[in-house]
Amino acid sequence: MKKIILSINAGSSSVKISVYSSEQNRDPEKLAETQITGITAPPAKLTYTRRGVTVTKNQAVTERLETQNDAFKVLLHTLTEDVGLPEIASKGDIAIACHRIVHGGDYTTAQVINQDTLHHLETLTDLAPLHNIKALQIVQSCVAELPGAANVACFDSQFHASIPEHIYTYPIDPVVARKNQLRKYGFHGISYQFITRAVARFLGREPADLNLIALHLGSGASACAIKNGRSWDTSMGLTPLAGLPGATRSGSVDPSLVFHYASDVGKLSPNSTKDLHISEAEEILNQRSGWAALTGTTDFGAIAAAPPSPDNHAKNLAFDLFVDRVCAFVGSYYVSLGGRVDALVFAGGIGERSARLRAAVADQAGCLGFAVDGARNEGVVAPGEDGAKGMVVQDVGREGARHRTLVCFTDEQFEMARGCAEDAELWT
Amino acid sequence: MKKIILSINAGSSSVKISVYSSEQNRDPEKLAETQITGITAPPAKLTYTRRGVTVTKNQAVTERLETQNDAFKVLLHTLTEDVGLPEIASKGDIAIACHRIVHGGDYTTAQVINQDTLHHLETLTDLAPLHNIKALQIVQSCVAELPGAANVACFDSQFHASIPEHIYTYPIDPVVARKNQLRKYGFHGISYQFITRAVARFLGREPADLNLIALHLGSGASACAIKNGRSWDTSMGLTPLAGLPGATRSGSVDPSLVFHYASDVGKLSPNSTKDLHISEAEEILNQRSGWAALTGTTDFGAIAAAPPSPDNHAKNLAFDLFVDRVCAFVGSYYVSLGGRVDALVFAGGIGERSARLRAAVADQAGCLGFAVDGARNEGVVAPGEDGAKGMVVQDVGREGARHRTLVCFTDEQFEMARGCAEDAELWT
Repeated sequence: MKKIILSINAGSSSVKISVYSSEQNRDPEKLAETQITGITAPPAKLTYTRRGVTVTKNQAVTERLETQNDAFKVLLHTLTEDVGLPEIASKGDIAIACHRIVHGGDYTTAQVINQDTLHHLETLTDLAPLHNIKALQIVQSCVAELPGAANVACFDSQFHASIPEHIYTYPIDPVVARKNQLRKYGFHGISYQFITRAVARFLGREPADLNLIALHLGSGASACAIKNGRSWDTSMGLTPLAGLPGATRSGSVDPSLVFHYASDVGKLSPNSTKDLHISEAEEILNQRSGWAALTGTTDFGAIAAAPPSPDNHAKNLAFDLFVDRVCAFVGSYYVSLGGRVDALVFAGGIGERSARLRAAVADQAGCLGFAVDGARNEGVVAPGEDGAKGMVVQDVGREGARHRTLVCFTDEQFEMARGCAEDAELWT
Repeated sequence: MKKIILSINAGSSSVKISVYSSEQNRDPEKLAETQITGITAPPAKLTYTRRGVTVTKNQAVTERLETQNDAFKVLLHTLTEDVGLPEIASKGDIAIACHRIVHGGDYTTAQVINQDTLHHLETLTDLAPLHNIKALQIVQSCVAELPGAANVACFDSQFHASIPEHIYTYPIDPVVARKNQLRKYGFHGISYQFITRAVARFLGREPADLNLIALHLGSGASACAIKNGRSWDTSMGLTPLAGLPGATRSGSVDPSLVFHYASDVGKLSPNSTKDLHISEAEEILNQRSGWAALTGTTDFGAIAAAPPSPDNHAKNLAFDLFVDRVCAFVGSYYVSLGGRVDALVFAGGIGERSARLRAAVADQAGCLGFAVDGARNEGVVAPGEDGAKGMVVQDVGREGARHRTLVCFTDEQFEMARGCAEDAELWT
């Protein structure tokens, strides 16, 4: 029996839904994908692709969108009203709605949402106020508007439940740590789960035998040491702030820095609401830092395209800084994995698209036995581009290098749907 | 002409003075050393060694000591009153007093102290309130009480002035960063300067040709990548909080962690004074964290001595956590130096004394070509111990390993005095 699965991904200014049809324990088959971007910078724009064909691209949304949930309703309407998508003739055809939730706290697996889990998810919002609340509003909306569907929460933190205690522990008062749930959680785990399976398949290996240094580099960026197919360490921490810098995020800085940045940084930011408590400090480091603060653009592509020159000082600095921080994790995780590394894997928007970034990282880490082949590295093609030639995993390593270097076009939407297809609880 | 040089080192609960006699551009010769410990945990105790012979050991101090400066006065009195030390018959015999100052801000070299530099040093206190103020009180005392002496400020940050921009820059608003002087400074630099010269001499090399991964591991701990004899990167940052954990210091944690640790962490701690502004957050992360918080002891020796066992869970966890964090920097700096590493160097109280820690780090970093020899590693002898057999630098590496592993008995007091002996301004 086939079921329709929606994979819902609420970003900071966007919502994306991918629609899959799947049998139990089979790879889900994508039917359609639709997204609204620019929610915080109107006019918002809607794109809709059905069976690989673009139906609508960057169409201005006429409805007024105040929240991610408003956007979700427009997207749902787009799907149910489309006569070209008879699989969703009405909301009742949707069997499973799975939601990407950034912070899962102590949840170590995806959760079918009921009143208990929903309440627990609400309490987690305090751990990640900037990240969980938007997805949670959509979950609440689905519970109300899709009574026939099972709602599933997929957590970006759950893949990292395998991190050992001496790595996830912070050297702070253990009583406070326990009480306030302060430990390394890690994020981008849905992506790392996808990468692990895709690379194992590409190499003809079992995931349980696979060691990787995986880099999910996008406007949020992280690194992960994968040991025997499971997370051993990752660069993000209690929240997604720690580790690598991002488009607007500082990444790890001296924890005392923010107290020298401005006074009263512990007070609530003016953007806080009744349900959403954000300190001024968290807002500065999450939303007013990163390469946008250094260069004025969130577009890493524009930064990487700037040739070295005194005229491009800010962009060159941001590029070199990012390469330095990425390489620090490559070196660190190489040691953490005892040098038993099957591949260095680049993923995420920047990892997939910036050949210059990949070359710079692999060159700097050349002493560990990584090397890219110039032509292969420049020749990476995204799946779907150029008549869908691009493979999910592509080898960009130099012939004869000690370790492989790969690009993986990661797909969180697919990974969430796949998890649902394998979850027996959803198929009884 | 010989001059008497005092090297003064004010710690968080101790003050130490080493007395040297030196000619210009010669290695200073140590005459005596005296220190008071336990200033914050009375009774304070005084130890005094003259020409290698212990005169007084852990003698309870009868005077009431409220500050590091009170302790300094007792130590100075001990030196001037000792008939066995005729070189200091009175305060007037002291030609140079050099002071270890943690945070030097934008100073890139040691400074002879005059009214201008003294004023500038006072403004730096805000960048490192927990670290600079105690030394500064002693500087002020010396300016008043030793009118015939030149006072010299030696900064723990000055060795790191060579760190390149893409490494010292934080990805935050550059206008705020410039205005508030927010960048990586790095500390333990006097120690790293000593290590660089001592290892170069041991290997028969010029410092300018030397690449090291140096680890200064004590109750404050840091790592440094030394490239061509100069600092290329280091683990501490704007303040000594960033990087490795210490006895009471968390090291790098998610910068948002402290806002989840307690409310109002941005407010001033009750221990703040008119001159000393410490936020609750900085006090938590600097003074109430680290392995003391995890295990109840500041003594890493006791932690390393606990055999792996469920009964020793907290100590085993603290040990494994420290090894993990140290190895992360070893891997990171190996890549940063492009694999051109002449030696991995252990220094500082823990680095010099814990054979188990050295073995654990070298084993984990074995994939990079480091290895310790069991007998050599266990056989390290401190200079002065066992009839002064121990050399300043000792090779603990395994025969045939790709890279050397060394122990260096670092000596910040000596390094400060040596700097003064080479400073032409002090000898005109």
